[in-house]
Amino acid sequence: MKTRRDFLNKLGVGAASALSIPLLSSFESGSSNEIIDTPNSIIDTKPKFIVPAGNALKITGTFLDEISHDIPHQNWGEKEWDRDFAHMKAIGIDTVIMIRSGYRKFITYDSAYLVKQGCYKPSVDLLEMYLRLADKHKLKFYFGLYDSGKYWDTGDMTYEIESNKFVIEEVWKKYGHFKSFGGWYLSGEISRKTKGAIDSFRTLGQLCKDVSGGLPTFMSPWIDGKKAVMAASGTLSKTDAVSVQEHEKEWGEIFDGIKGAVDACAFQDGHIDYDELDAFFSVNKKLGDKYGLECWTNAETFDRDMPIKFFPIKFEKLRLKLEAAQRAGFQKGITFEFSHFMSPQSSYLQAGHLYDRYKEYFGMK
Amino acid sequence: MKTRRDFLNKLGVGAASALSIPLLSSFESGSSNEIIDTPNSIIDTKPKFIVPAGNALKITGTFLDEISHDIPHQNWGEKEWDRDFAHMKAIGIDTVIMIRSGYRKFITYDSAYLVKQGCYKPSVDLLEMYLRLADKHKLKFYFGLYDSGKYWDTGDMTYEIESNKFVIEEVWKKYGHFKSFGGWYLSGEISRKTKGAIDSFRTLGQLCKDVSGGLPTFMSPWIDGKKAVMAASGTLSKTDAVSVQEHEKEWGEIFDGIKGAVDACAFQDGHIDYDELDAFFSVNKKLGDKYGLECWTNAETFDRDMPIKFFPIKFEKLRLKLEAAQRAGFQKGITFEFSHFMSPQSSYLQAGHLYDRYKEYFGMK
Amino acid sequence: MKTRRDFLNKLGVGAASALSIPLLSSFESGSSNEIIDTPNSIIDTKPKFIVPAGNALKITGTFLDEISHDIPHQNWGEKEWDRDFAHMKAIGIDTVIMIRSGYRKFITYDSAYLVKQGCYKPSVDLLEMYLRLADKHKLKFYFGLYDSGKYWDTGDMTYEIESNKFVIEEVWKKYGHFKSFGGWYLSGEISRKTKGAIDSFRTLGQLCKDVSGGLPTFMSPWIDGKKAVMAASGTLSKTDAVSVQEHEKEWGEIFDGIKGAVDACAFQDGHIDYDELDAFFSVNKKLGDKYGLECWTNAETFDRDMPIKFFPIKFEKLRLKLEAAQRAGFQKGITFEFSHFMSPQSSYLQAGHLYDRYKEYFGMK
Repeated sequence: MKTRRDFLNKLGVGAASALSIPLLSSFESGSSNEIIDTPNSIIDTKPKFIVPAGNALKITGTFLDEISHDIPHQNWGEKEWDRDFAHMKAIGIDTVIMIRSGYRKFITYDSAYLVKQGCYKPSVDLLEMYLRLADKHKLKFYFGLYDSGKYWDTGDMTYEIESNKFVIEEVWKKYGHFKSFGGWYLSGEISRKTKGAIDSFRTLGQLCKDVSGGLPTFMSPWIDGKKAVMAASGTLSKTDAVSVQEHEKEWGEIFDGIKGAVDACAFQDGHIDYDELDAFFSVNKKLGDKYGLECWTNAETFDRDMPIKFFPIKFEKLRLKLEAAQRAGFQKGITFEFSHFMSPQSSYLQAGHLYDRYKEYFGMK
Repeated sequence: MKTRRDFLNKLGVGAASALSIPLLSSFESGSSNEIIDTPNSIIDTKPKFIVPAGNALKITGTFLDEISHDIPHQNWGEKEWDRDFAHMKAIGIDTVIMIRSGYRKFITYDSAYLVKQGCYKPSVDLLEMYLRLADKHKLKFYFGLYDSGKYWDTGDMTYEIESNKFVIEEVWKKYGHFKSFGGWYLSGEISRKTKGAIDSFRTLGQLCKDVSGGLPTFMSPWIDGKKAVMAASGTLSKTDAVSVQEHEKEWGEIFDGIKGAVDACAFQDGHIDYDELDAFFSVNKKLGDKYGLECWTNAETFDRDMPIKFFPIKFEKLRLKLEAAQRAGFQKGITFEFSHFMSPQSSYLQAGHLYDRYKEYFGMK
Repeated sequence: MKTRRDFLNKLGVGAASALSIPLLSSFESGSSNEIIDTPNSIIDTKPKFIVPAGNALKITGTFLDEISHDIPHQNWGEKEWDRDFAHMKAIGIDTVIMIRSGYRKFITYDSAYLVKQGCYKPSVDLLEMYLRLADKHKLKFYFGLYDSGKYWDTGDMTYEIESNKFVIEEVWKKYGHFKSFGGWYLSGEISRKTKGAIDSFRTLGQLCKDVSGGLPTFMSPWIDGKKAVMAASGTLSKTDAVSVQEHEKEWGEIFDGIKGAVDACAFQDGHIDYDELDAFFSVNKKLGDKYGLECWTNAETFDRDMPIKFFPIKFEKLRLKLEAAQRAGFQKGITFEFSHFMSPQSSYLQAGHLYDRYKEYFGMK
C-alpha cells in the first residue's frame, strides 16, 4: 500500500524536504497566486526546551466521541477511523474508550432493546466497526454504557441502571467475542453531588464484571471546581468551587461505596486551575490507594477557557496538566479526546499542530 | 483542463490508491514528521448499511448565503464559487437560491435604489456572478428579496414591502435576461406569529410574478418548535413549543391567504425533534395539497444542538430528516446550505465528510 | 529550498494550471471519489471591481497573539511562525507586535521576576524566537507589556505598573540587543472609563522610553461603541453607546495626559458601525494631530457580528474600514491579527481566502 513516504518519493522529494512543501490553503484551493520564497527557511525545527522535556505522564488512552453530545460531529467513515487509530497508535495510545453506546435516541449499534425504547436505528454498526479496527490496530477497547439523558433531565439514575442492564447483556452476547473488547466505561459523568451515584455505579460496575468474567471497569467524573460550568453558559468560572477538603471527604465516601465494582477513576482535569492541580491530584491518588482504585487522569485536550466551546487546547496547558499527573504518580493518562482535538486529520487544524507539539515534547519521531 | 484524475495520473497513482494519499495536516504544513504506515489499510470503504440506503428525499436545491447574517463568511472569489457549483451539480443539485439580495446595509449588487437608501456598494456584482455561473452550470437560480432588518427590529413588514417593490423591478430589468433566472425567494423568515405576514407575502409574491411573467415564488418559514431559539442564546430548547394542532390551524390560514402568489413552501426542518418530523411533515403536506402550494423541505445541514452555532450536522440527523420528507411525499428538498455545511471545499472540514457520507448513502460514485 | 513553484514543476504542471489542482478535502483525505470535471473552468479569476480598488489604507503591522486570551491557540512551532512571517512580508507587513508578554500566569519568556510571582515557566522562549525571526525577515518588533489580569478583575491599574517596571527592565537587558527590537506596546486595553489610565499609560510609556533610548510606544484602546460587549455575552450591541462628542472630550483629556510618553494610538475599529467610521476616525485624527500622537488604525480582521466568537471577517467589512482609515489620513494600519484571521496557513480556512481577496483588492500578485 501507499504511504506518505511513497507519495513523497514519487514526487522525487525526500522526507526532509517535505517540510518545505507548500501551505495548505495555497496548495489546496489554488487560493494563493503568490509564491512565497523564504530563503534559509529550512530551519532547525527542534524546539529548544527551557523546561525538562518529556517529564510528564503520557496519554495512552482516548475516548471515542462518536455519539455527539456537545462536540460537533466530524462525519467520518471507516477509512477516516482506520487512519485515526493509526495516528493514535503512533504516539503510544493503546486504549480506546467509546464514550457512550448511545445518548438519548442516537445509538451506536443496532440494539433491539434500545430501538424498542424509541431510539433511532443507526445507518451502520459503529460498535462493530470500532471493535474490528481495535482488533486490527491491537488497541484495547472499552465499551461506554448507554446514557438515556434522563439523569441529566431529572437528577435520577434509576432509568440509567435499568436500561443498561439490558444493554450490557445484549452487547456482551453480540460483541464479547472481539479480542479487543477489554473493559467497560461507566459513562455517567457524575460529580460529588450526584444523587444515587454510589449505588448506581456499584450496581453497573458489578453487572459489567459479572457478565464479562471480571473485565475492568472505570469512571471519569468531574471535579466540582472553578470552571465547572455548562458549555452553553456565558460565565467562565464558578464562585462556589469545591474546596480540596470537601472533595476529599465526599470522594472518600464514594470510593468506599464503589470499591471492587469500579477498578479505576479518571477525574476530568479541566475544571480546576493549573496551580490547583497538585492539591487535587494528590488527594485523588491518596484516595485511590486507600480504596484500591487505580488513579488515571482524563487530560482534556480541549480548551475550557475560550468563548468558542470547544477547540483544541494550547500545548502549554496540556503540558502543565500531564506534568502534575506524573508528579502525583497516576497510573494512566487518557484524554477526551484525540480525534477532534489532537488528530492530524481533525477538522480543527489546531489539533494536528498539538499532535506535533506533543510529539516534540516527548521526543517522538 | 486539469481534473483530479489528471493530477493523480501525473503522480503515477490511480484513483484507487488515492485513498492512501497522506493526511491533510501532515501533508499541508509538513506538520507531521512521522510516517504512518498502516498495513492492510486499503479497506473496503463501502459502508455496510443496516438501514435501507437511499430511501430518502434527495437534496436538489441549496441556498447561497453570500450576505452573512449569522454564518461567518468564507471570503470566496469567483474561482471558489465556480468550483462549488460543480460540486453541487455532482450530487444532483439543480437549483440555487440566493438567500437575500441584501441584509441591512450590505447588498449583493449595485442597486441604485438601495445605495440611495444608505446601503454600501459592494466590491463586485455578486448577483451577476451567480447568474453567470448558474447559466454555465445549468442551474436554476432563485433571487432572494432584500431584508432591511427593520422587520427583525420592529416586527413591522411595511418597509420590507416598500423597498422590495423597487428591488424587484430593478433586478428584473437588469438581470431578467439571464437564462438561469428561474424564480423568486420571499426571504422573510416568518413564523406563524409574524404580524402582517399574510399580506406582505401575498403582495410580494404577486409583484414578483407580475414583473417576470409568472416565474415561481417560494418561502421558507420556520416551525415554532422546541429548538426555535436565537442563535446567540444559551438555552437549547423552548418550553412553549407549538403543538401540531396549532401549527395546522395557523398555517392553514396563512396558506389560504397567500395561495396563488406563493407556489411552494419549504419549512425549515431544524426546530422540531426528530421524532416529531412525521407529525409536522404530514400536516404540511396536507395543507400544501389543500391550498395548492408545493411542499418542499428545507433540510438544514447545520447542527442546532451544539454550543458552537453553527457547524455541519452529523449525517445521521440529516438522514432522519430526509427519510421523513420522503415518507411525507414532499416535492423537493433544498438545504441551508451547501457551501458552508456540505461542500468539499468548505472551511469546515466536517462538511466535506458529510458530502462523502451523503454520496455513499445515495449510492453516488 | 523547495517552493510551491518547484513543487508544481515537479508535478509537470505550471503556475497557471495550478488553479485546477483538486480540492482540499478530495485530495487530502481521499474523501471524494467523484471526479469533478468543470469544462471551461479556467475562468478569468480577476474580479471586476465596481468600486475603486486599492483606495484604502494598507495593513502594514499585525499583532502576534501567542498568549491566548480569547482566541484559541493554533499550537504552532517555529516552522509555522517562520512561514507566517514570510506570508506577512509578502503583503507588505513590516511590523509585528507581540500583544502581551504574558497574561495572568502564562508568559512568553523565562522571566525570573514573573516566575517568582507565580507564573508558569514556558516550554520554549517565544520572545527570543519572535525576535530572531523578526531579524531574519527584517520586520520591526514591538514588545507588548505583561497583563496580570488584575486590572480586568479589580479595575485597578496599580499592579500592572508595578509588575511591568520589572518586566521592562528585564526584557530590555536580555533582548534589547536584537536588531528588530523596535518599540513597545502598552498592552492594557483601556476605554475612556478606565480608572487611572492616564497615569499608568504615561508612566509605563516613559519607563519604556527611558530604558531603551527613546524607542517608540503605542497603545490600542477600544472605542466605547455599539458593539463593545464582552465576547461571551449573547447580545450584540449596546444601547448606551458613546457619542462622538463624549468620545472627543474624554480622549482629548487622555491624549493630553499621555502625550510625549505615547507616540501612537491605534483605536480598535470593530466596536462601531460601518457608517460611524468617518465620524469617529476624523475626531481621532484631529486629536492625534493636536496632541502629537500618530493615528493608526487597528483594523480588526475578525468578525464581531457573528454568534461564533471569533472567525475571520468578511472582506467587504474590512474594505469599508480600511477605506475610512485612508479617508481620515491615518498614518499606519495594523491588525488584530494576521495569523488566525488572515493567514493562508490559519486553522480557519476563511483566513486564507481573506488573504487572497485582500491581495486582489490591492492588486498584489
